[in-house]
Amino acid sequence: MAKNNAKMVEQITSMDVDFGQWYTDVVKKAELVDYSGVKGCMIIRPYGYAIWENIQKDLDARFKACGHENVYMPMFIPESLLQKETDHVEGFAPECAIVTIGGQNKLSERLIVRPTSETLFCDHFKKIIQSYRDLPKLYNQWCNVVRWEKTTRPFLRTSEFLWQEGHTMHETEEEAREETQRMLKVYEDFYAETLAIPAYTGKKTEKEKFAGAEETYTIEPMMHNGVALQGGTSHYFGDGFAKAFDITFTARDNTQKHPHQTSWGLSTRSIGAIIMTHGDDNGLILPPRVAPIQVAMIPVAQHKEGVLEKAAEIRDRLAKKFRVKLDDSDNSTGWKFSQYEMKGVPLRLELGPRDIENNSCVLVSRVTREKTFVSLDNIEEAVEAALAAVHNELYERALKNRTERTFEARSREEFLDIAANKEGYIKAMWCGETACEEELKDVTGGVKSRCIPFVEDHLSDTCVCCGKPARHMVIWGRQY
Amino acid sequence: MAKNNAKMVEQITSMDVDFGQWYTDVVKKAELVDYSGVKGCMIIRPYGYAIWENIQKDLDARFKACGHENVYMPMFIPESLLQKETDHVEGFAPECAIVTIGGQNKLSERLIVRPTSETLFCDHFKKIIQSYRDLPKLYNQWCNVVRWEKTTRPFLRTSEFLWQEGHTMHETEEEAREETQRMLKVYEDFYAETLAIPAYTGKKTEKEKFAGAEETYTIEPMMHNGVALQGGTSHYFGDGFAKAFDITFTARDNTQKHPHQTSWGLSTRSIGAIIMTHGDDNGLILPPRVAPIQVAMIPVAQHKEGVLEKAAEIRDRLAKKFRVKLDDSDNSTGWKFSQYEMKGVPLRLELGPRDIENNSCVLVSRVTREKTFVSLDNIEEAVEAALAAVHNELYERALKNRTERTFEARSREEFLDIAANKEGYIKAMWCGETACEEELKDVTGGVKSRCIPFVEDHLSDTCVCCGKPARHMVIWGRQY
Repeated sequence: MAKNNAKMVEQITSMDVDFGQWYTDVVKKAELVDYSGVKGCMIIRPYGYAIWENIQKDLDARFKACGHENVYMPMFIPESLLQKETDHVEGFAPECAIVTIGGQNKLSERLIVRPTSETLFCDHFKKIIQSYRDLPKLYNQWCNVVRWEKTTRPFLRTSEFLWQEGHTMHETEEEAREETQRMLKVYEDFYAETLAIPAYTGKKTEKEKFAGAEETYTIEPMMHNGVALQGGTSHYFGDGFAKAFDITFTARDNTQKHPHQTSWGLSTRSIGAIIMTHGDDNGLILPPRVAPIQVAMIPVAQHKEGVLEKAAEIRDRLAKKFRVKLDDSDNSTGWKFSQYEMKGVPLRLELGPRDIENNSCVLVSRVTREKTFVSLDNIEEAVEAALAAVHNELYERALKNRTERTFEARSREEFLDIAANKEGYIKAMWCGETACEEELKDVTGGVKSRCIPFVEDHLSDTCVCCGKPARHMVIWGRQY
Repeated sequence: MAKNNAKMVEQITSMDVDFGQWYTDVVKKAELVDYSGVKGCMIIRPYGYAIWENIQKDLDARFKACGHENVYMPMFIPESLLQKETDHVEGFAPECAIVTIGGQNKLSERLIVRPTSETLFCDHFKKIIQSYRDLPKLYNQWCNVVRWEKTTRPFLRTSEFLWQEGHTMHETEEEAREETQRMLKVYEDFYAETLAIPAYTGKKTEKEKFAGAEETYTIEPMMHNGVALQGGTSHYFGDGFAKAFDITFTARDNTQKHPHQTSWGLSTRSIGAIIMTHGDDNGLILPPRVAPIQVAMIPVAQHKEGVLEKAAEIRDRLAKKFRVKLDDSDNSTGWKFSQYEMKGVPLRLELGPRDIENNSCVLVSRVTREKTFVSLDNIEEAVEAALAAVHNELYERALKNRTERTFEARSREEFLDIAANKEGYIKAMWCGETACEEELKDVTGGVKSRCIPFVEDHLSDTCVCCGKPARHMVIWGRQY
């Protein structure tokens, strides 16, 4: 193995000093992304893309398990098609990238690079849905989309990003509403079971809902510093698009009806959620189920006879069940320790001459840094248990952070005090008026409604903003 | 199950009557694609996209097995970046889609929707390659690309298509040349082992090589009607791009050198190759390794007691190893037979009351239509063997077709005669001059050089076009 020039693991800014700089350091130094010469667009490097591949594999299996099929729509939307649903075009027009030239000629109709694909799916649904027998249509697509952004941050906000967008059509409102909730639950389970991230879920207010939707549901995980990240959304459209696109079907009672529609999406932003929920001052911490390397094997005193051979043997055993990397380069052991810590590998396995003598090795959790001596006889079971423990440790830690950083405000003064002095979510009552949301955002410099949770606490009778009767308890927070 | 309205399997134009119409009928009626409102762009429907997913899974494993990592580059290329390599921009400029507006403002620099990503990779390589220790870089990306086309056909030629593009950088010319050949071989194996398609491979002439490459290698399967389809290409770039992008590294001898580069790509056009190589007048025939449904189970007399229960039991057993679909709808058995034939399902399994009594079922190959009675005891093994047989039957049939449709021409007259009267490839000697390629294309109305195969026959001493001394034997053919 070639000698590495840079023996020092590069320094990462401390989270407490500057969380934003910490994030930038981590994504760069762990080699998740690189900046490109294209304004607002990122390069996803192998280590970052491998996380996305693991996310895709996991989510795709969840989608298919409930009957969804993948398709691929064109990336261009003729301008007239985007304009068919009024609210939709108003929401997206300001952030479109537009192709005006093709094959050296000015196009007769401008093409929008898809910011989302409701309009394309509707155009197709119109052709393939004739009868109730053609329903439901349960489609999903994995693709890139473009939303022109002024200020960008890798994974969190980029002009181009990768995502999946589900688009479904149903015979009845009830079925479509069920689908909307089902897919929100899929996202919630995915965040908890795969990313080890607990999250509040609920309904978006009118102001915050998706352009063209009747209702938008959201999953709102809290980052380590108390800031919210919209982790995924699921929309119920009613028959608004179906009417705009003139999609009808012959119903069981032989009348012509409009189908009811949903869409739901989750993007590479979820990688930002992983980084900011779990990371620490030593770098990334990756949840085992999506970590490109689950176990970093570091041989100790690897020049001694038999060490590398034994390490390779153990590596081969583990590789049957886990994503394992044996680092037998001639970098120092200390450097390797720091390097794989920085890259967030959930589990380190150390193996030296004395361990081999004792038929054992050492497992070290990236989260607790606890060392465990385990027998080589049952190393597969030990690694499996240790990875499960890392997952649970991450989840519990994130849950504790969220609990500690979720505050209740029963008055305007309390709300403003928390917004000014604490970092986290605020639970507070709200009258239901957009004006109050806007006022609270203005006076706090950015605290917005995250969602109306499915189970609302009754904190008081009045809106914290205007004092009028409260209609809902809302979770509020600053956002990425 | 709902009663199907359309009891008739839709008619497909006979191949011999009109191969082009046959193709259009098959892609539409087997529900592989739909036309979109976007000129030149196709919608890939679930059945078509499932084939692409199987192709991706198979190829991706082959790439990773030889050390490649997946990444994601931006979809936009700043115009100045595309212009850095002269030949490259000349080749691609005529077919670019160009974004001129972003976020409601005219862009200061126009953005090209990627037609291929050499320039973006080079821009990134420049940043991450400093030393020979950073080499090789073995990258691949799965994405959409756009090449503006005037006349389009689903899968074969569309303005947007899906593909993978590998981009690698190497310390030496030798290593890069090896990589170019290695990846061509990966494509050849993939076509043979996964798609059951035999293919000629070889080098492209100067005229036909990729814009900016030193050498282009190609895989050229022959379609059923004798027309060629370029199935994948692998390019050796030398250090041309590296020089244009000023990419250097510190070599082992401490001097600054330019790395040597390759790229290689395979697209959704490969689905067109499957359709046109294997299909027949009854529709698609899908090679088992990429077929979304490998076994269509059709219960016979399904209203009789126990038939559907037994069928479901067998389905559950088979589903552990195969992609199986049990059709228990109330469509007629005859309709089901035709439907799954049309959709190209490689194997049909029939199960009726008498079969159940005999503890057996019937397997029918989509290729030979041969019926085999097999015991239910070892149904998994029987299905496995039958699918392997279908694969081999398809491969042998395609090979036979290719052999029968490959002709040798030793003179200009022979060449023109074959070009005018036969459908297939022509092997003929060539002087090496582009002028002769162009002349042959003109006088034949479209016969072009496909490749110079790795092993050339010596058919004569002179070029079939100009009569000057021959330098190579070339395989010629019309193309999609």
